[in-house]
Amino acid sequence: MALNKVVALAGGVGGAKLAHGLAQVLDPEQLTVVVNTGDDFEHLGLLICPDVDTVLYNLAEVQHLQQGWGRADEHFCVLEEVQRLGGPSWFRLGDRDIALHLLRRSLIDQGLSLTEVISSLAQRLGVHHAVLPMSDAPVRTMIQTPDDELSFQEYFVHQRCQPVMRGMRLAGLEQAQVSVAVAQAMTAAELVVFCPSNPFVSIDPILALPGMRSWVGERKAVAVSPIVGGKALKGPAAKMMQELGMEVQALAVAQHYAGLLDGFVLDAADAPLAVAVQALGMRVLVTDTVMHDKAGRRRLAAEILAWGERWG
Amino acid sequence: MALNKVVALAGGVGGAKLAHGLAQVLDPEQLTVVVNTGDDFEHLGLLICPDVDTVLYNLAEVQHLQQGWGRADEHFCVLEEVQRLGGPSWFRLGDRDIALHLLRRSLIDQGLSLTEVISSLAQRLGVHHAVLPMSDAPVRTMIQTPDDELSFQEYFVHQRCQPVMRGMRLAGLEQAQVSVAVAQAMTAAELVVFCPSNPFVSIDPILALPGMRSWVGERKAVAVSPIVGGKALKGPAAKMMQELGMEVQALAVAQHYAGLLDGFVLDAADAPLAVAVQALGMRVLVTDTVMHDKAGRRRLAAEILAWGERWG
Repeated sequence: MALNKVVALAGGVGGAKLAHGLAQVLDPEQLTVVVNTGDDFEHLGLLICPDVDTVLYNLAEVQHLQQGWGRADEHFCVLEEVQRLGGPSWFRLGDRDIALHLLRRSLIDQGLSLTEVISSLAQRLGVHHAVLPMSDAPVRTMIQTPDDELSFQEYFVHQRCQPVMRGMRLAGLEQAQVSVAVAQAMTAAELVVFCPSNPFVSIDPILALPGMRSWVGERKAVAVSPIVGGKALKGPAAKMMQELGMEVQALAVAQHYAGLLDGFVLDAADAPLAVAVQALGMRVLVTDTVMHDKAGRRRLAAEILAWGERWG
Repeated sequence: MALNKVVALAGGVGGAKLAHGLAQVLDPEQLTVVVNTGDDFEHLGLLICPDVDTVLYNLAEVQHLQQGWGRADEHFCVLEEVQRLGGPSWFRLGDRDIALHLLRRSLIDQGLSLTEVISSLAQRLGVHHAVLPMSDAPVRTMIQTPDDELSFQEYFVHQRCQPVMRGMRLAGLEQAQVSVAVAQAMTAAELVVFCPSNPFVSIDPILALPGMRSWVGERKAVAVSPIVGGKALKGPAAKMMQELGMEVQALAVAQHYAGLLDGFVLDAADAPLAVAVQALGMRVLVTDTVMHDKAGRRRLAAEILAWGERWG
């Protein structure tokens, strides 16, 4: 039986890649992408939503191909002038990207919720699948380091993940809930896919919202490992695992999600870990999880869906 | 005796030109430019302050030479993308201009007053003379037309001054007052110069603020006619005068300010009007008021100051 309602949880470049794969295989009414907003921050008078925008740009196929985030064919006229005027230029906002941010700011100022704003931006970019911020309320991932507590982008971009991570905290979580749209998508979901995103700063913030763990637990749910061959393909997941005292292995990610998931997708490079993952009570799909191009994203998405459909 | 404290009231391109002339002649501690903010508006999530920015760009000598407003050597990468995304592009914000606007938005978000924000932007542009918004509170010029009441930029830029002007209203005036900085500058002023700006939408909004007319009335004050040879050099002043039932002549501008001013500067083309202006109780300076270049701005400013110094 084909899966008619799929929810993908995503954050970061890996998440956006698989979301794009799923969007190539599923119709708009079949797929909802719920995106981490813990990385969001206010900067230069703008609300920056890095994970949401990376998903939007990938689904619209206008993302920067090498970076994975930001826009292709980008200029930096504004940022160069900001720098000349003594403003902050460490966060690399390109001109096209700033256009989207101005529209977002303007729509927020008009009183729209973040969900409504992102829906409008998606439409403008020609994205037809639902892309939902995990919450309309601000939840901000704070990284605890030996000296300080840093906002995520301060840690991730400005300090280039140099500080040691001791832990993290989700500021604003107590006041936050999922939007009605997320609740509806989760309730209707036949399959939940955790994209190959950072477990700590991309997926966990989504799961931390009230109701999410129950919804995931009650549904067929699978995760794609963001760790391949003992390394993170992109971003600080491996460094974080090390600093949090975990082994940098796909198995540790599976352990992190144990009890919540029905299935786990391992890269072929990690095939020997399959037995250990199965011992955690999960089905295992071993395949090539590294998405080199548009076709690779589609192939991985199709394999995961076919696999999920096969179980009772 | 040299004039040690001069305040210029300015709005629009003509105002910015003479402010730049005065800034060439006077030291930073001798000149304060008080600028109309009735043209300000919120657009694309930004606070746009057209008159203040035109003064800043002219004093920094980075203005677009032909237009008089906006930046020289400007690109429109952001606006092109805004347009592609279905956003409004009628207000021509260039990329360098947007950089300034992002810094303004960011400083406002940090809780600074508009006066403090403009002071920071001036410093960043290398402007050392004081440029003060007339008020920290929003005052918005609304243009009354036969069909509608339009915000100033809607009338001026979007509808290109096509609608007939029946009158105007300053929204927010009841809650507004001049800033402490403006009050200090006015109290200390030995000469107040009304730059050749639109009387209705550039100078009158400044004069409408509590205290301004008294301060001007108690001090040596002169205006430079924005009408030369029965035409406005730039902008809708002539059209407005006609629609308000006034004769389009420098004399009508002098009549508009009668009782408030000690002197009036007529262009040589309007020399025959000098007697009629004097009959209103004002001294008259007849000179070339059209500022073609940087030197022309300086010359006119120097002439006005020398003239003002000569009276007892």
